[in-house]
Amino acid sequence: MKPTHPVWTSFCTTMPEIEAAAARIRSLIVATPTIPFAALSHDMDCSIAIKCENFQHGFAFKARGACNAVFSLTDEVAARGVVTHSSGNHAAALARAAKLRGIKAHIVMPKNSAKIKLAAVRSFGVEPVICESTPAAREAMANEVMQATGATLIHPFNDALVIAGQGTVGLEILRQYPDVETIVVPVGGGGLLAGTLIAVKSLKPSVRVIAAEPEWANDAFRSLQSGQIEPVLRTDSIADGLRTPLGSLTFPIIFQLVDEILCASETSIVESVQHLAMHAKMIAEPSGAVPLAVVHQHRDRFANQRVVCVVSGGNRDN
Amino acid sequence: MKPTHPVWTSFCTTMPEIEAAAARIRSLIVATPTIPFAALSHDMDCSIAIKCENFQHGFAFKARGACNAVFSLTDEVAARGVVTHSSGNHAAALARAAKLRGIKAHIVMPKNSAKIKLAAVRSFGVEPVICESTPAAREAMANEVMQATGATLIHPFNDALVIAGQGTVGLEILRQYPDVETIVVPVGGGGLLAGTLIAVKSLKPSVRVIAAEPEWANDAFRSLQSGQIEPVLRTDSIADGLRTPLGSLTFPIIFQLVDEILCASETSIVESVQHLAMHAKMIAEPSGAVPLAVVHQHRDRFANQRVVCVVSGGNRDN
Repeated sequence: MKPTHPVWTSFCTTMPEIEAAAARIRSLIVATPTIPFAALSHDMDCSIAIKCENFQHGFAFKARGACNAVFSLTDEVAARGVVTHSSGNHAAALARAAKLRGIKAHIVMPKNSAKIKLAAVRSFGVEPVICESTPAAREAMANEVMQATGATLIHPFNDALVIAGQGTVGLEILRQYPDVETIVVPVGGGGLLAGTLIAVKSLKPSVRVIAAEPEWANDAFRSLQSGQIEPVLRTDSIADGLRTPLGSLTFPIIFQLVDEILCASETSIVESVQHLAMHAKMIAEPSGAVPLAVVHQHRDRFANQRVVCVVSGGNRDN
Repeated sequence: MKPTHPVWTSFCTTMPEIEAAAARIRSLIVATPTIPFAALSHDMDCSIAIKCENFQHGFAFKARGACNAVFSLTDEVAARGVVTHSSGNHAAALARAAKLRGIKAHIVMPKNSAKIKLAAVRSFGVEPVICESTPAAREAMANEVMQATGATLIHPFNDALVIAGQGTVGLEILRQYPDVETIVVPVGGGGLLAGTLIAVKSLKPSVRVIAAEPEWANDAFRSLQSGQIEPVLRTDSIADGLRTPLGSLTFPIIFQLVDEILCASETSIVESVQHLAMHAKMIAEPSGAVPLAVVHQHRDRFANQRVVCVVSGGNRDN
């Protein structure tokens, strides 16, 4: 029998897992809309629609991967709880998913985390485990919790079930906007991008998938050039959710499937947050506005295209 | 043959006209989403979804009625142009509809109109006709234009085709959210409310339709009590789109079909604008936030209900 979808044997997850994720999380997430906004492209030759993950539970796409991972655990494993380290939206998403499943979540967060992210975790009845602000300290603390409790680590992006959950974004865009020609996805650790790539390139490979990254955190752009995972060289981009290197599971998927990675300046990211407020009446976090920034900054690459920009989140402190 | 829908013979428009409007304007408007937001009702016993007319063309529901009216004109009548007087979102909506049809629009606006509304009209290539700030001056100027040009008046709300166009909001809510039990609609002149009432009470009369009005512009509330159109007594509500008395065509529909009119304080309107930004990541104009304000202020009336609040617009100067 001919397989329905291509199978990339070296990847940690494939289309059937994304379809399973979609069924598993259907009642736990919002099937966020894809909305066209003529005003976003009024001086450009393309048409722009927004996939509104800022309207997701927790106001970020992270709810998808977290729910898929938590609800895939057997009862016995789930009973020992889950643990993660995250300064961002994955923290609250995992706290929520654990609460929905009725299990304990241990959320390791650096002491310089944004207040809004700490408050979001606490709103699900979880007191964050505070650690020093280095990646090493975060991982060490998460390991300590794992050893002590037997909790399962749910990594923010380098996890097959998390990637499959984020891939439901791609599935929904194709269903909601069948005429789409180009999808622009922000890339930090690469979970959303990898999942979306598998969904889109499985179901409709003619649709271009462009990754959007800040110039000041262009590690994925450089990784694609060098063929290996490159580090983030500076940590001051306003797009705080994207200052993360790719992971061992996300990199190969992105390396093989992405059409192109384009970078946005800090100025264009700030302008895109303002454009989304003025011309789409929505609040986006800077990381979520990077796809629109890329379309504006590289407008020749999108001429005459029907473009969907994924606005990945709406949380910001200011 | 049994009619499909009830026919209220005294009304200016009925269900078949709303269905015709939906077909006529399909490609001219956005079928805006209805999105559930758990965070909007986290301390309440109801579930709240938002019908997002702030994501409509021109960022307000007015696009619907204006397009239906303009595209219902015969070629001969259309060629003489259209005229209206409006300080609000109808002005730009009519300018856009006329541009789409390729005809001339004359938009009479008071000299104290908000800058954002003047700019919106100009963005469609129409220079507003500026008049004094009284209702009498606006009507006189519109009449003058009609006499001089033969243009057709498209009233902001007291027009059967405008009401039918706005009624497509109700049609979409029932299709997008079949489990809805209560719909809350802002009421100014009553076009959106009257159209929604005809759609909802024709297709699913068990769904409650509640009108939402500012306490400081409670003319519709008083009209329902007295049985006749009452004037607006003060003009200082922050909900500037709702400081309008009902019309001769909208009043009888609302009087006969609305379940209840509830009023919101100025404080709760401002808070609801903030709630929509914080808990739904969207920008609403104060008039558009009045339904949510009513639900918060009268929460006992919405207990255990699945509620849809219509956010009617997203334009504000500040």
